[in-house]
Amino acid sequence: MRPFKKIDVQDIEVLRTFVPADRFFVDNIHPDYSHDEMMIYGKKEPEVVIQIKSAQEASNIMKYASEHNIPVTPRGAGTGLCGGCVPLEGGIVLNTSLMNRILEIDADTMSITLEPGVLLMEVQEAVKNAGFLYAPDPGEKSATVGGNVMTNAGGMRAVKYGVTRDYVRGLEVVTPTGEILELGGKVAKNSSGYSLLHLMVGSEGTLGIVTKIIMKILPSPKKMTSLLIPFDSLSSALKTVPEIMKLPEVATTIEFMEKEVLDDAQEFLGKEFPNRNYPAYLIVSYSGNTQSHIESMLDMATETAMKCGALDVFLSDTAERQESIWNARGAFLEAIKNSTVEMDECDVVLNIDQVAEFVDYTRECSNQYNVRVRSFGHAGDGNLHVYICKDELDDETWKKTVEEVMDKFYIKAKELNGQVSGEHGIGHAKKKYLEDSLGETQMTLMRNIKRVFDPQGILNPGKIVD
Amino acid sequence: MRPFKKIDVQDIEVLRTFVPADRFFVDNIHPDYSHDEMMIYGKKEPEVVIQIKSAQEASNIMKYASEHNIPVTPRGAGTGLCGGCVPLEGGIVLNTSLMNRILEIDADTMSITLEPGVLLMEVQEAVKNAGFLYAPDPGEKSATVGGNVMTNAGGMRAVKYGVTRDYVRGLEVVTPTGEILELGGKVAKNSSGYSLLHLMVGSEGTLGIVTKIIMKILPSPKKMTSLLIPFDSLSSALKTVPEIMKLPEVATTIEFMEKEVLDDAQEFLGKEFPNRNYPAYLIVSYSGNTQSHIESMLDMATETAMKCGALDVFLSDTAERQESIWNARGAFLEAIKNSTVEMDECDVVLNIDQVAEFVDYTRECSNQYNVRVRSFGHAGDGNLHVYICKDELDDETWKKTVEEVMDKFYIKAKELNGQVSGEHGIGHAKKKYLEDSLGETQMTLMRNIKRVFDPQGILNPGKIVD
Repeated sequence: MRPFKKIDVQDIEVLRTFVPADRFFVDNIHPDYSHDEMMIYGKKEPEVVIQIKSAQEASNIMKYASEHNIPVTPRGAGTGLCGGCVPLEGGIVLNTSLMNRILEIDADTMSITLEPGVLLMEVQEAVKNAGFLYAPDPGEKSATVGGNVMTNAGGMRAVKYGVTRDYVRGLEVVTPTGEILELGGKVAKNSSGYSLLHLMVGSEGTLGIVTKIIMKILPSPKKMTSLLIPFDSLSSALKTVPEIMKLPEVATTIEFMEKEVLDDAQEFLGKEFPNRNYPAYLIVSYSGNTQSHIESMLDMATETAMKCGALDVFLSDTAERQESIWNARGAFLEAIKNSTVEMDECDVVLNIDQVAEFVDYTRECSNQYNVRVRSFGHAGDGNLHVYICKDELDDETWKKTVEEVMDKFYIKAKELNGQVSGEHGIGHAKKKYLEDSLGETQMTLMRNIKRVFDPQGILNPGKIVD
Repeated sequence: MRPFKKIDVQDIEVLRTFVPADRFFVDNIHPDYSHDEMMIYGKKEPEVVIQIKSAQEASNIMKYASEHNIPVTPRGAGTGLCGGCVPLEGGIVLNTSLMNRILEIDADTMSITLEPGVLLMEVQEAVKNAGFLYAPDPGEKSATVGGNVMTNAGGMRAVKYGVTRDYVRGLEVVTPTGEILELGGKVAKNSSGYSLLHLMVGSEGTLGIVTKIIMKILPSPKKMTSLLIPFDSLSSALKTVPEIMKLPEVATTIEFMEKEVLDDAQEFLGKEFPNRNYPAYLIVSYSGNTQSHIESMLDMATETAMKCGALDVFLSDTAERQESIWNARGAFLEAIKNSTVEMDECDVVLNIDQVAEFVDYTRECSNQYNVRVRSFGHAGDGNLHVYICKDELDDETWKKTVEEVMDKFYIKAKELNGQVSGEHGIGHAKKKYLEDSLGETQMTLMRNIKRVFDPQGILNPGKIVD
């Protein structure tokens, strides 16, 4: 592969013509463009930042970049957790966050058409106001929907509703060579050739730049109620999860949390959590349209939890109580981040009956390496977020410890037939673990697929595959 | 591309060593191996048929076939409708239907692991007996699950539960070069690199041979009730569908049918359908766990249907009435097939608010070309099955008519932003329409993806892409 071209004065002159001056940045680039939410995955300045407003602009830029072998890194809100939007090779950062229009909410086809820069909180609100439900519910509400599609983000409600992938019906995508593709549409199903749509979902901006998204929306359930269920240990909480999953009604959400993380969240938010001071909890939610229907679900879940050793079951049926639980849950990542100077994250997904074993293992490692480890996550779909915290460790010990502990986590995950990432993706931070997990044959297939779309390797270089 | 090798005595000698003698056929090949359910898409004899029982056997055969450039066509039950398992280039037909073991139903991860040759009716029954629901419900119950995965089959319950793709968590696949891949697993979600799993689903045996499947199962709803809703025209029936879709509870099934198809089914089954003699119907089903919950759904649907011009609403709450409706619905394809000497099929999927317009258009074509056209399908997800019947037409007129009418259907579908296939796939019969629909850029991407997996083009040649 020939080396990427450094952007020179001549390139800048041409690139400037593709967008108005106020969307082109070369000397005054905001430092945020050099990293995502995880500073540990490196800072790297782009040479140029361009804010696009249309597929045609993206196409013009990609055609020029292709001709001149200039690397391009797409970026939404920059809330990723694997370094996926870090411009490792410099070049152009192509920011889609001004493409933030909701183009249509179509009740007759139960679909929403939107630009990639719309924030998750905005789309959820807009769909709610139209009387429907935007089902995917990743934790980071200020992420863009484009970013959610590109990482196949999951979130809280995946137990009942599935992940972002399950809602994507159509995409407009600009390829690395500047072609504009229309994949799928508003249709509810599709068996028309290889699913380029599903290949694009979760490809982290390495195969194309998403410029339009069509997603399925659902009728909005009229009520949701949560149960807060304390246990004497996380292990007994997690062992209850498969039993709740077998009940005739599917829970909307099954999250787990530990006292330590809750304490961090309370301190971070400056608010007390109700029914605190138990070692571990499950939060189990049900949604439906009638009080009696939801009550029947809650009764079943309560009975099952008590049989499995729950210490109590607290009903959160007021808006206030629900809010306090979900605010605490929503603050976990920020709270842990806030509790330490630096941290690294592991987003493994396991068979749901093996989460307990994995969490126990992270504890052993924590003790063995004398490093603080925190975890929380989506117990109902086996997806954990485990954080290793630097705290008082010196730089050298930290570097060595985090590497060794992280290696052990992923080796354990593989041993349990888990996968490297449940919803945060690979970026450049998890490439090594992806290779270890999938092996050379699958990695070669992925590299060759990358080449089909991006023969020069200019789009988001260094991510997922090399 | 160099021409495929004809199988000679030496090849046979080696190929024979890969399986026991009773699973190797060369002189005594059953004539069924030359076609699928649609004779109109051609008959072509394979040179050798091998029934495999393991991934390792498939791998050995593919390695030999690769080395010698021998074409291989995978086949399950042969119930396809697009010529997908016709061995266009001769060579080996690799039959997976003896790989018919259900390996595990795992309640703790809510998954089933099975071999590809298990029939849909068998897996539905086994999962039901274990107390769970296998949600995908394609019409052809004697299809194999492997075939369902390879065409991303949809079926009756897709409105509520989605299509086969939505349930596939893991696949073991043998590549055209004989590598054995493990894609995904029992995990509920996954964002670990490009989704080779989702690329494989719907690839119609052109990228790999599926040898093991892990699918998600659901808690089984305790009750299902159907409404049979007559209308004075198909058009008013279809216009009711989006209104039912907007209701707070999602229907399990929304099918449409016309009197003519019902008449065919009655004659075919020799049984009278209840409440016959209306011009058109919707069948709307709801499932749930309590009588009161289902009743609230039925009330809402009834009210909506009556508001939209339904002539009546018949409740099918006895096993007997449900059976008579679903037996009739299940017999449509066979009944139409039985009513004519030859037919061709179109499996377009449209936005659900445009199904009425498309069906009207098929009527116009029927009148204009003086050819009998029948349709039925999945109104709730916009997927129609339209049949053009030869009846008394002479061969030459038939050939000309079916080609022209089919062309018009697909042009119209494209005009309405529909897609070529909702669930039957492309095979070799619909390649022309796929190209017209997707255009050269997407077809080139697909061809190059095919090459990544199958550089020599030996696996199921002539299907989806050339």
